[in-house]
Amino acid sequence: MAKKKNARKKTSKKSAKKPVRKASGKKTTRKKSASKKSGAKGARASGGSRTHAGGARSKRPTKKKSRAGAKRAGSKKAGAKKIIPGKMVYSFGRKTEGGASMKMLLGGKGANLADMTSIGLPVPPGFTITTEACAKYYKRGRKMPRGLMTEVSRGLEILEKESKKKFGDRKDPLLVSVRSGAAVSMPGMMDTILNLGLTDKAVEALAEKTGNRRFAFDAYRRLINMFGDVVMGLDHHLFEAAFDEIKAKFGAELDTQVPVEGLVELCERYKAVYEVQVGEAFPQNPRKQLELAVEAVFKSWNADRAISYRRIAGISGLDGTAVNVQAMVFGNMGQDCGTGVAFTRDPSTGKNEFYGEFLINAQGEDVVAGIRTPRPVIEMKKWDKKSHDQLMKIKSKLEKHYKDVQDIEFTIERGELFMLQTRSGKRTGQAAVKIACDMVREKLITEKEALLRIPAGDLTQLLLPSFDPGKKDLSQVLTKGLPASPGAAVGKAAFTADEAVERAHNGEKVILVRKETSPEDVDGMHSAAGILTSTGGMTSHAAVVARGWGKCCVAGAGEIAIDAANGVFRVEGRAFGRDDTISIDGSTGEVIAGEVPRIEPELSGDFAKIMKWADKHRTMGVRTNADAPKDAKRAREFGAEGIGLTRTEHMFFEGPRITAMRQMILADAVDAREAALAKLLPYQREDFIGIFEAMKGLPVTIRLLDPPLHEFLPHDEKSQAELASSMGVPAEKVRHRVAMLHELNPMLGHRGCRLAVTYPEILRMQVRAITEAAIDCLSRNVRAMPEIMVPLVGTRQELALLRGEAEAVIDEVKAEKGWKKKLDIKIGTMIEIPRAALTANEVAEVADFFSFGTNDLTQLTFGYSRDDVNTFLPDYLKRDILPVDPFQSLDQTGVGQLVEMGLERGRATNKGLKVGICGEHGGDPDSVKFCHRIGLDYVSCSPFRVPIARLAAAQAALLG
Amino acid sequence: MAKKKNARKKTSKKSAKKPVRKASGKKTTRKKSASKKSGAKGARASGGSRTHAGGARSKRPTKKKSRAGAKRAGSKKAGAKKIIPGKMVYSFGRKTEGGASMKMLLGGKGANLADMTSIGLPVPPGFTITTEACAKYYKRGRKMPRGLMTEVSRGLEILEKESKKKFGDRKDPLLVSVRSGAAVSMPGMMDTILNLGLTDKAVEALAEKTGNRRFAFDAYRRLINMFGDVVMGLDHHLFEAAFDEIKAKFGAELDTQVPVEGLVELCERYKAVYEVQVGEAFPQNPRKQLELAVEAVFKSWNADRAISYRRIAGISGLDGTAVNVQAMVFGNMGQDCGTGVAFTRDPSTGKNEFYGEFLINAQGEDVVAGIRTPRPVIEMKKWDKKSHDQLMKIKSKLEKHYKDVQDIEFTIERGELFMLQTRSGKRTGQAAVKIACDMVREKLITEKEALLRIPAGDLTQLLLPSFDPGKKDLSQVLTKGLPASPGAAVGKAAFTADEAVERAHNGEKVILVRKETSPEDVDGMHSAAGILTSTGGMTSHAAVVARGWGKCCVAGAGEIAIDAANGVFRVEGRAFGRDDTISIDGSTGEVIAGEVPRIEPELSGDFAKIMKWADKHRTMGVRTNADAPKDAKRAREFGAEGIGLTRTEHMFFEGPRITAMRQMILADAVDAREAALAKLLPYQREDFIGIFEAMKGLPVTIRLLDPPLHEFLPHDEKSQAELASSMGVPAEKVRHRVAMLHELNPMLGHRGCRLAVTYPEILRMQVRAITEAAIDCLSRNVRAMPEIMVPLVGTRQELALLRGEAEAVIDEVKAEKGWKKKLDIKIGTMIEIPRAALTANEVAEVADFFSFGTNDLTQLTFGYSRDDVNTFLPDYLKRDILPVDPFQSLDQTGVGQLVEMGLERGRATNKGLKVGICGEHGGDPDSVKFCHRIGLDYVSCSPFRVPIARLAAAQAALLG
Repeated sequence: MAKKKNARKKTSKKSAKKPVRKASGKKTTRKKSASKKSGAKGARASGGSRTHAGGARSKRPTKKKSRAGAKRAGSKKAGAKKIIPGKMVYSFGRKTEGGASMKMLLGGKGANLADMTSIGLPVPPGFTITTEACAKYYKRGRKMPRGLMTEVSRGLEILEKESKKKFGDRKDPLLVSVRSGAAVSMPGMMDTILNLGLTDKAVEALAEKTGNRRFAFDAYRRLINMFGDVVMGLDHHLFEAAFDEIKAKFGAELDTQVPVEGLVELCERYKAVYEVQVGEAFPQNPRKQLELAVEAVFKSWNADRAISYRRIAGISGLDGTAVNVQAMVFGNMGQDCGTGVAFTRDPSTGKNEFYGEFLINAQGEDVVAGIRTPRPVIEMKKWDKKSHDQLMKIKSKLEKHYKDVQDIEFTIERGELFMLQTRSGKRTGQAAVKIACDMVREKLITEKEALLRIPAGDLTQLLLPSFDPGKKDLSQVLTKGLPASPGAAVGKAAFTADEAVERAHNGEKVILVRKETSPEDVDGMHSAAGILTSTGGMTSHAAVVARGWGKCCVAGAGEIAIDAANGVFRVEGRAFGRDDTISIDGSTGEVIAGEVPRIEPELSGDFAKIMKWADKHRTMGVRTNADAPKDAKRAREFGAEGIGLTRTEHMFFEGPRITAMRQMILADAVDAREAALAKLLPYQREDFIGIFEAMKGLPVTIRLLDPPLHEFLPHDEKSQAELASSMGVPAEKVRHRVAMLHELNPMLGHRGCRLAVTYPEILRMQVRAITEAAIDCLSRNVRAMPEIMVPLVGTRQELALLRGEAEAVIDEVKAEKGWKKKLDIKIGTMIEIPRAALTANEVAEVADFFSFGTNDLTQLTFGYSRDDVNTFLPDYLKRDILPVDPFQSLDQTGVGQLVEMGLERGRATNKGLKVGICGEHGGDPDSVKFCHRIGLDYVSCSPFRVPIARLAAAQAALLG
Repeated sequence: MAKKKNARKKTSKKSAKKPVRKASGKKTTRKKSASKKSGAKGARASGGSRTHAGGARSKRPTKKKSRAGAKRAGSKKAGAKKIIPGKMVYSFGRKTEGGASMKMLLGGKGANLADMTSIGLPVPPGFTITTEACAKYYKRGRKMPRGLMTEVSRGLEILEKESKKKFGDRKDPLLVSVRSGAAVSMPGMMDTILNLGLTDKAVEALAEKTGNRRFAFDAYRRLINMFGDVVMGLDHHLFEAAFDEIKAKFGAELDTQVPVEGLVELCERYKAVYEVQVGEAFPQNPRKQLELAVEAVFKSWNADRAISYRRIAGISGLDGTAVNVQAMVFGNMGQDCGTGVAFTRDPSTGKNEFYGEFLINAQGEDVVAGIRTPRPVIEMKKWDKKSHDQLMKIKSKLEKHYKDVQDIEFTIERGELFMLQTRSGKRTGQAAVKIACDMVREKLITEKEALLRIPAGDLTQLLLPSFDPGKKDLSQVLTKGLPASPGAAVGKAAFTADEAVERAHNGEKVILVRKETSPEDVDGMHSAAGILTSTGGMTSHAAVVARGWGKCCVAGAGEIAIDAANGVFRVEGRAFGRDDTISIDGSTGEVIAGEVPRIEPELSGDFAKIMKWADKHRTMGVRTNADAPKDAKRAREFGAEGIGLTRTEHMFFEGPRITAMRQMILADAVDAREAALAKLLPYQREDFIGIFEAMKGLPVTIRLLDPPLHEFLPHDEKSQAELASSMGVPAEKVRHRVAMLHELNPMLGHRGCRLAVTYPEILRMQVRAITEAAIDCLSRNVRAMPEIMVPLVGTRQELALLRGEAEAVIDEVKAEKGWKKKLDIKIGTMIEIPRAALTANEVAEVADFFSFGTNDLTQLTFGYSRDDVNTFLPDYLKRDILPVDPFQSLDQTGVGQLVEMGLERGRATNKGLKVGICGEHGGDPDSVKFCHRIGLDYVSCSPFRVPIARLAAAQAALLG
């Protein structure tokens, strides 16, 4: 709670002293101009974000995959660099020890800094402390690894030689930045410290050397502030209060109006604050500063927000962050200085257009934080053509080198361009598809590489509905912001991250409305249906994070005035509070009052091409879960090759059906149940005919009735009484039956095939409906391929018994209808009980097919009730007990064993056994890959996930 | 329902014509004297029982074990006989093809008839149709196996040669009995047909030959009746009605008063009934009779009552019954005829006293059915010394031959003794222990054989409480019956089997009060706490079955007048209805009004000896599950070598504890929870001190809090309101908390270690209490060996995290107490989640021990809620989907795999891992044997089952 703070204007801080070898020696430095107030903590909070924003190409880069990714990305040159066991510090500059292939060890940022240096790009020199060093730090119980600081000293020596400056020198001190950088990019999660190396003595030398005393003391007071805040965990308000006093004393309203002597005094006050709070003086030994800063970065790896980010992004398998120590360069020394961020192609649409923003006389943070409105990078030409042209060359070189869209950062210090970062650019699903197809056309990559390049899960974004243009009431369009991340979100405004989390948890759809967002808002951003900010550009925190998640975001909608304290925002003279619904369009930037109806997407030509390529390469089938002809039809359009799961219980709820169903349940004897079931038969038959027709001869797996019977009866006394009177039975009878059917653990109760064992007449009715429907279709030359699936089987005997019952009914119906032609009805079972997997060799003897019901199998293997798991699952994810929600992505370690065992044992006794999966995991890319690996015949998932499954299956086949 | 009938006087029917080679040719036959009414159906119902009563040495003889048993029982001589593949008929007599080793093939009865013949005992000749023939009958879809009747004809030829009679002969017809006999004895479950071979012609020949026309026609009318009833399934009332008409016509009150011409006419009427009902005439071809009778025996194998018996007795793995066809001998031809049943030792106490009963001029059924009161076998001496002495010699010979107590049947036809059956005698647990020890003393068997001889589960009977003699109010003793099966049962009278089943199902304790019992009553007998009959002796159906189960039974309490129709019995002028509680003492035969207090048993010297032998031979440890010092102490007395499971939740319910517990649950924040937990700490500490003291240095495994928190809160609104006011919080708050804690599937919810993850302060309090208690004990030189068991672990990370928390607390307490000496507190986990077993290699890395919680493991592996399973489990057992309730005996096929896997994988990464089991299966003999086989270190069970586990573990070790 103490960490929460209001959105504040951020200070610049990424400005860094240009290394001496390139320094012009001029004394012209200028005051930074943007911030009204300064606050190092605030700066850290979002300012630190940019250098780490975006970049995780895959959302779930476990160790294995990250390594694979690193290998693919490695250039020949960088690949030649060698990992030396035990070595904890790798330099880059004239002597470059690391390379692109060392992402796991050096982090993404460190590996690419070394790589860019190697291919001759202008990068300030420095060194990287390995992720292993961080891991050692935690293994030693949060103690610095032995020998680390010796290696750091050696790295520093090299850096000093190269920069011809000395750390803490009284003439020309070396200043460095200290930044985190994990193997997988984690936007804004890590702490950064700038201007390190300044001391009471060194600041004077810097003032002397740059001829800019104000710049030097401004840098010093920022260091003290940041160091106190980030390294020592002091309350940044203490520094702010001191600054306010100085401003009052010198009659300054803005930070920039404070005279040099004021900044000198401010440094003294800051040091006093530091000393009182920390209990010792601000360290005047730059090496001490460095050691503490490195440790602070190590610590930031396990800060709450870092853990939270990893959890949301599904990142696991990493042991720590690397630390990059790099000579400072400054983009804020004057009008010939500047800074910018850019994507080599448009990350939102995928268009091959250089896409970025820059600010003159500013720091990178100013671009990201949305404090000043940045200018499109194309306009750089007019300001500094040389740098612009150089940047365009670098852009092309990078795309050729990495064969992928790059997300870059650069700073121009007194006319000289420096590259501070490059990495794969995070992109939307749309962009991923377009870029992959374009790069194949450009012959940069192959078709197979293109398939592997697209995170399968991101295809969802292409399948999301958009607002119906015909139904968008233009009079309700309130304003237009930047189309920062596509999508069509509808919800009620929430004004803080906490509020968004809570209301979303209670089932509300909310739009998080913020002036700007910071890393501390990620939980709220994740909970919201969409994000709307009033400041910030296309590369602001909100935009980058939202794009990474594929979440709808409209950024920089400047006409909106937000009054978070009163829970209202105003635009066009209208006020919108917590109860007002708005719609935001992430593709147009429009903000619209009320709820705009949505329509299904048109699938683009590139999408179809990717799907075609995927189908060419995949070997595993993809089916869908669908209970109605409409869903079946849509899934077939999405490429489903059959239905893997038709649930029949939904078919009993409409109108007269539920009445007959209840009569059946309330019946005392078999014949009364049979009479009620006879009423249900025609409905069931029509249901199945509709689905067979929709699937046009593709196989349709129909699961027999699964839920416990009490789900069909009303549970409150009033409804029970109504039911009783409508059925002409005593109310007491209904009450009694409901009470009798009550179960303590319905999940483990009288359901699935257990119902068919005790009430075989239900199975008989359903099998009859299936058989009659099939014969009806076949007799009209409509192909029908029903597969009867018996749910919840735990023993061979259950299936053997019920198979016998079903076959008897099929024979009976055939005889009745005089059907002499072929009628192929397979009978199989869901494997969702651990025992069924354990004894699959036995079960398979009486099954034509298996379909893993991984939802229930996960419930039983973990002993988690899906309905109740939210009481502890959040804690489990937070404390890293589970890497990911096992109901979303298959637990390959545990549940996966049972799936593999079930498959192997089943095939051992029944070679022709067809085996699929129909849990929700069937549409999760990682789970689909697992299914391919172990050799399932098909996966089945909801219609919208069919394309994802097709792509993931292809990727799995390509990865082998 | 149609099959249920009132208790009726039974007809004799086991009388059989003596084979001619031994026949004296005398014409003196007499009327049977006992029955007032005759009813073939009734006769079948209980009459058939005796020949099959008792005999199953183990209650759960799966195929494997039965084979092993058969092997052990085989004598050298019998063992020489050879099984000939495909042969379906084995003769015994002069040519004896079978032997004792062939029980699986010939059934117990058939194998022993052959064996007795082989060792020279007088057995009427015959042949046995194999169990394989019966299995083939079912495999062919209830069609007689090809070639069977040809083999039967050959068997018949041999029999005809030996008896010098011809089947269906018009001069001296051969009569046979046809009886079932499975590999495992199933009392009263199989149908029997006597006097087969009589036809219109043969009956005249028999009359001629025996000179007893009445006897011949009596035999004929019985055959028609039995054949119609058993083979053709006719309603026996039709025959009774015909008999009543004849009696009326001839002015006879009793059957025996009907003159010969009446019986002749009766035969005609019976044949008419048969023809009308069956649609064809009573078969005059004896071979046709035989074929139909054999098929009827085959069919009886799958009659409801047979299936039901096998289910209750846990018999599985058998494929069918054998059929014994044997020349008839008759015990009811006159005063020089008789019949009896006996045990070579007292089956109730085990005393080495010949124990049995006989009746003069009667059939075996008369002894069993309790129609006439039989005389002790010792009195035979006065009646027929020659036969008596011969019987005593046979008795000794049999015990030496079989090295076990034998249960025998004999018939004396005109002064000549015939053995009709021998088998191992069913005995009570007490008797089993005494007999085993005695036989070791007599050097009949070895110590190891003695251990293997006692069904471990039967030891329960020795540990059952008995009535406290000091508190038995003699004025309330109503009457004294026979002490038929030991035990002390208390309950309310139930008058029919159905009533007993239903009331027991509703949780009532009932005593089944019946005039006599029949095989159709077995369900009710099984449900009742005890059985009280007003007729019948120590070998009556009720007595034999009750002893087999170890259920308390008082038989033949003749003073009791039962009015079942009105639900009342009268004795001593007092009336007892369904609401009156009675106590019956199976050791004294006393029937007492009201509830007599019970006391714990004194364990006999023989019991101690068996336990000592068991401990010498077993290699697996035995611990107990105990939550209180009292239980712990008792279990130690029973031989427990430690506590395998102390549940801590019970400790939170008493007085002030539950208040503090509820405060903890209602608290909003950690510190309020900690404050409430601080109040619980002293109680917990005292609990543990008590248990450590009771266990005197043996290890004590303490499971941390397991159940979901809502179990500690009241669920009705009134109690919630009271709780709120007593705690000074708004009622709404309590209601809200209860609602929040509500779970749809609590079994799969927020419980076990999940509680400790979200509320680590609970774990901290418990670990503190354990540590403080241990230090307190150790400082007083009381050894304490606590083992902390974390429940419901599913992932390594859970245990790693909680282990860390626990170790921190232990260190903290040690520091606080300044404890420098050794303090050995192991930390391990229950393996009860399938995933934990699957990933045991990982979990074991952070565990000192595993304990399989097979109750929950069974729930999750099957997906059965123990609380709800009764909605379908009875159907599952009935339809043979499950061989046995998996909560009673471990499902070795499924759940067992996980146990084995968990053990192997756990030991693979942690060699020193101690592994036990603490589910209720720990006291089930079969499960204990499984645990030994796979290599567990110990089993843990409830105190009373400790001796069972010790013996079962020894048996497992001896069997290797």
